[in-house]
Amino acid sequence: MRVEIVAVGTELLLGQIADTNSAWMGEQLAAAGIDSHFHQAVGDNQARIVLALRTALARGDAVIVCGGLGPTQDDITREAIAEVMNVALHRDEVIAARIAAFFGDRQREMTENNLRQADVPEGAIAIDQVQGTAPGLICPLGAKVLYAVPGVPHEMAEMFERGILPDLRRRSAEAGEEAVIVSRVLRTWGTSESALAAALQDRFELLDRPAAGPGTVTIAFLASGIEGIKVRLTARAGNGSEVTKLLDAEEQEVRRVLAERLGDIVFGLDDTSMEQAVADLVVEQRLTLGLAESMTGGLIASRLVSVPGASTWFRGAVVSYASEVKFSLLGVAPGPVVAATAAEQMAEGARRVLGADVALAITGVAGPDEQDGQPVGTVFVALALPERPVDVREIHLPGDRERIRQYSTISALDVLRRALLERAGSGRAG
Amino acid sequence: MRVEIVAVGTELLLGQIADTNSAWMGEQLAAAGIDSHFHQAVGDNQARIVLALRTALARGDAVIVCGGLGPTQDDITREAIAEVMNVALHRDEVIAARIAAFFGDRQREMTENNLRQADVPEGAIAIDQVQGTAPGLICPLGAKVLYAVPGVPHEMAEMFERGILPDLRRRSAEAGEEAVIVSRVLRTWGTSESALAAALQDRFELLDRPAAGPGTVTIAFLASGIEGIKVRLTARAGNGSEVTKLLDAEEQEVRRVLAERLGDIVFGLDDTSMEQAVADLVVEQRLTLGLAESMTGGLIASRLVSVPGASTWFRGAVVSYASEVKFSLLGVAPGPVVAATAAEQMAEGARRVLGADVALAITGVAGPDEQDGQPVGTVFVALALPERPVDVREIHLPGDRERIRQYSTISALDVLRRALLERAGSGRAG
Repeated sequence: MRVEIVAVGTELLLGQIADTNSAWMGEQLAAAGIDSHFHQAVGDNQARIVLALRTALARGDAVIVCGGLGPTQDDITREAIAEVMNVALHRDEVIAARIAAFFGDRQREMTENNLRQADVPEGAIAIDQVQGTAPGLICPLGAKVLYAVPGVPHEMAEMFERGILPDLRRRSAEAGEEAVIVSRVLRTWGTSESALAAALQDRFELLDRPAAGPGTVTIAFLASGIEGIKVRLTARAGNGSEVTKLLDAEEQEVRRVLAERLGDIVFGLDDTSMEQAVADLVVEQRLTLGLAESMTGGLIASRLVSVPGASTWFRGAVVSYASEVKFSLLGVAPGPVVAATAAEQMAEGARRVLGADVALAITGVAGPDEQDGQPVGTVFVALALPERPVDVREIHLPGDRERIRQYSTISALDVLRRALLERAGSGRAG
Repeated sequence: MRVEIVAVGTELLLGQIADTNSAWMGEQLAAAGIDSHFHQAVGDNQARIVLALRTALARGDAVIVCGGLGPTQDDITREAIAEVMNVALHRDEVIAARIAAFFGDRQREMTENNLRQADVPEGAIAIDQVQGTAPGLICPLGAKVLYAVPGVPHEMAEMFERGILPDLRRRSAEAGEEAVIVSRVLRTWGTSESALAAALQDRFELLDRPAAGPGTVTIAFLASGIEGIKVRLTARAGNGSEVTKLLDAEEQEVRRVLAERLGDIVFGLDDTSMEQAVADLVVEQRLTLGLAESMTGGLIASRLVSVPGASTWFRGAVVSYASEVKFSLLGVAPGPVVAATAAEQMAEGARRVLGADVALAITGVAGPDEQDGQPVGTVFVALALPERPVDVREIHLPGDRERIRQYSTISALDVLRRALLERAGSGRAG
C-alpha cells in the first residue's frame, strides 16, 4: 500500500501556516507500517485539486485529501473529488439532519451554505462527523481509494484514527503486507555530519546488503543546526517486538562504533535535550549548579530552567552583560573580559555568590564587532567543579551573532556534560 | 510564472519534522507576486525524486527542489537532477577547492564524501555556497528551470534570496507579468483575536466592496501564540509605489481604530519584536536596564541581548531561581517569594547590584505545583523607574509550564514598554 497525502488550502502555499496535518498523518502511517512516498499541497482551486488528486492516484494505491470540506464558497474538495470520480454530488439527508441538529443544539443560525457539507459524491461512503459539521469521505476508485478528511487538526486526527486507518489496515492485510516501522534517534553534539558518515560507513554497507533476517534497519543523519546532528535508526519488521530487538541491537552497535571513533558525542535518545542530559548527571551526582553568563545573556539558564524539577538543583545565574557587573558582582579583576582569566574568575564568583557546588561561566564575542582584540566567535567556557581547580576551554564558533550565542549555549552545556561524565567515571574507578 | 516547490527528505514524509522550508519559500514567492500552485514532499529515493521533479516540471514553469544536497550517501538530489536533465555529473574544481578551504579554516578533517557536494550536472550553474559547504544549482531545461537549494533552513533562505529570487524576478519580468503583492504586519499584544475582529469589523466590510481604485487591500489575523496576534494587511497593485500608498493609508486607519478601541496594543511592524520595541524606548530615553528573573530563568535577558547594540544599555540580570539567592544577593526579606513584596524588593535589589537606571523583576508560579499558596499561572511583575516608587502588577496566565514562562516573558516586557511610552508622553506633556 502506497498512500499519498494531499493537503488543500491556499494558506499552505502562501506559507501562512505550516502543514502540520500531513506531518502528523505521515507519522501515523509510518507507525502502522504503511508506506507514504509523496505529499502534495494545493490551493483552493478546483482544476488544480483535480490535477493533484489524479497525480496522486496515478502513483499510489490510496490518497488522503485533507481540507477544503468546510461550508464556505472556497471549500471545493467535494466538487473536485466528484470530478475525479466522474460522478455527481447528491445531498445526504441523514448528514443534513445532523448538521441542522448541531446548529439547533448550539442555538446558532444555520445558513444554506452549511448544508453543502451534506453533499456526497455518488458511490462514496461518508465517515460520520463526530466533532465538527464536516463528514469525511471514503471514495472507491476501482482497486484504489480516495479518503477525505477536514483540515481542522483535531477533527482530522479523530477521523483518521476512526475511519481511515482501520480501512487502510484492512486493505494492507488483504494485500498481504503487515509491517511495523519504528525510528529511534541518537542525539549527538561535537562532530560533523561527514565525520559521522565516515565513522558509520561500515554500518551503511552492512545494512545495504540483502537482509539475512526478517526485518531491515536503515540509518540516516539529520542535521539539526544548533541542536546537533541526529542519527536516526529506522527498523521495519513484522511486529513490534521484532522491531524493538532490531533497534536495540543496532543502537548498541552504533553507540560502540561512535564511542570508539568519536568519543562521548551521543548525549541522549529521541527527544532528550542537552539540558536534560546535564540535569540527569547533576541530579545523579547530588550537586547544585550556578551560572555566570555574558554573551549568552541568560540562554543557558533559561534552557536549564525548562527541565522539570530544576528548582531542586539549579541555584540561578548572574547575567553579567556589562563589564562593570562582572567586576562588581562577580569579583572579576578589571581588565579584558573576553579572556581565560575573566572566565575563570566569573566561574569562581558565580559559585560564591550563588552558593553552588558547580559553576559554569561563559564569556566571548558574539559580534558584530571584535572585542578585547579577540575575533568574533571566540568563546571562553570555565567550569568550577568541587575540589578541583577551575578548568577553562577556548572555543571558536562560526556564524552570525544569534548562531554564535546558540552554539555557545549548547557547547558550554556539553563541556559540563562531558566533565560530569568523566567525574562519574573516575569516581566509579576510585 | 508558476513555481512548484519540491522538498526532499524521508523525515518529512515520516512526520519527524514539519516542512517549514516550503512554507517560508511560499511566503517569499507570494510577496514577490509569483504564483506557487503546488508543493510536494518526497523521500530520499532517486526514482521517486525524479518522478516528483518530472511531475512538477510538467505542471509549472519553474521548480525549486530543497534538501538532499548534503555530503552523505542518502543525499541524492544531485543524481536525481542529472537524471531529469539527462546529463552526467562532473566535479567542479572551484567548488571542491572552496569545500577544502572550509574544512582547512576550521581545522577539521575532510572526507572524500564531502567532495560529492562539488558534483554538478552538466549544463547547470552553481550558486556559490556562502554559509555551508553545499552549493545551490540553477539548471535550465528548455524554457523551464529547476533550482536546487540545501535543506538547512538558514542556508536555504540565504541562497533563495541571493540566487533564486532575482533569477525568478527576471524571468517573470521577461514573461511580462508584473503584479506586486506586499504584506505589512502590525504586531499586537494584550488582546484576543475576536476583540480585534470586532474592532476592525467596519474595515472588513469596507474592503469587501469592489475596489474604487486600481489596487486591493485585505486584512487577516494570524494568531502567533506567545508572540501575540498579527494583523496582516496585504495589498496588490501594478507597481511598488501604488502598493506602498495603499498599505500606508490602510495602516494609518487600522492603527487609529485600534488605538481608539483597544489602547496601545500595537507594539511594532513586521519583524519588530517586543524586545526591539522595548530597546528603542530605552535607547530613546537614554536609560540603562537591569533584570531580576525567577520563574522566567533568564528568558527575558536572553531576548533583550538578542537586540543588536544591547551592550550600550543592558547591564545584566540576576536569575534568582533559588529563594536563598533572592535573599542573599538581591536583599529580598525572607518570606514568601511569590508575592508582590518579593517582586518589589527584587526590582530594588536588581537596580542596586546591577547599577541600572531601570529594573524589571518577575516572580511567579510556572507549575506544575502551586507555590506560597499561589495557584499556577500567578505572576508578579515589578518595575523600578527613575524617581518613582516601584510599581507592581499581578498577572494571571493560562497554559502549561513552558507557555506560562513564555507568556510571562512577553507580558513583563509589555509592562515595561507601556510604562516607558507613558513616561515619554508625560515628559513631552510637561
